[in-house]
Amino acid sequence: MSLRVPVLRIGDSLLVSIQTDLDDGSVLVLQEDLAARVVEDGATGVVIDISAVEIVDSFVGRMLATIAAISRMLDAETVVVGMRPAVAITLVELGLTLGGVRTALTLEKGLKVLDDARDQRPQGLPDDPELR
Amino acid sequence: MSLRVPVLRIGDSLLVSIQTDLDDGSVLVLQEDLAARVVEDGATGVVIDISAVEIVDSFVGRMLATIAAISRMLDAETVVVGMRPAVAITLVELGLTLGGVRTALTLEKGLKVLDDARDQRPQGLPDDPELR
Repeated sequence: MSLRVPVLRIGDSLLVSIQTDLDDGSVLVLQEDLAARVVEDGATGVVIDISAVEIVDSFVGRMLATIAAISRMLDAETVVVGMRPAVAITLVELGLTLGGVRTALTLEKGLKVLDDARDQRPQGLPDDPELR
Repeated sequence: MSLRVPVLRIGDSLLVSIQTDLDDGSVLVLQEDLAARVVEDGATGVVIDISAVEIVDSFVGRMLATIAAISRMLDAETVVVGMRPAVAITLVELGLTLGGVRTALTLEKGLKVLDDARDQRPQGLPDDPELR
């Protein structure tokens, strides 16, 4: 059976922690879960934690880019956190520079990036409980 | 007979609600109606509500991009609201990322985005009744 990746909520953001051994099915389920949660929770940010990812291939790289694109369509910004040095090198070597996806070294910094981006937004009624 | 999509006015914005079953003719009529109304009403924003759209194809995707481009030519900003998670996924899979089109989860948030964008404009005499 495929592994289901949990989607956690932190404030107005959603957090997903990626493990290396995701297969195609798990990735599709994750994309659907995440898209559904962005809409349900009215999330304005998505943090993808890849600190457990030691080896990256083009499959994982594309998954990150696709998740970011879907989130952007739903008006949520994506930050990738916890990238290891070797992963950064491999992504560049693969030509996958994750255009348009922000990165931060740690989860804390990633959440800060999203908080700051949220402050600069046209205020999307973040505190209106009726829209939650 | 083709369905005619109503164009509603909310403040300085126009609201169009898309149904999935638009045929080519209806889309052309909608584009003409909307362009005419942007000019007549001096609208500064267009909200396209796609919450009734459950399945999107490249035809609908292109329509959204075309309406946004026409509106932009007439100095009105477009926001697409109510996108379902599955629609976001399909648009990304189709490679239709609606470049330059803003999205918001709800109609309220979409109107707020347009309001804030309007506040940041060079002031185009918005309160001069003679220009209405």
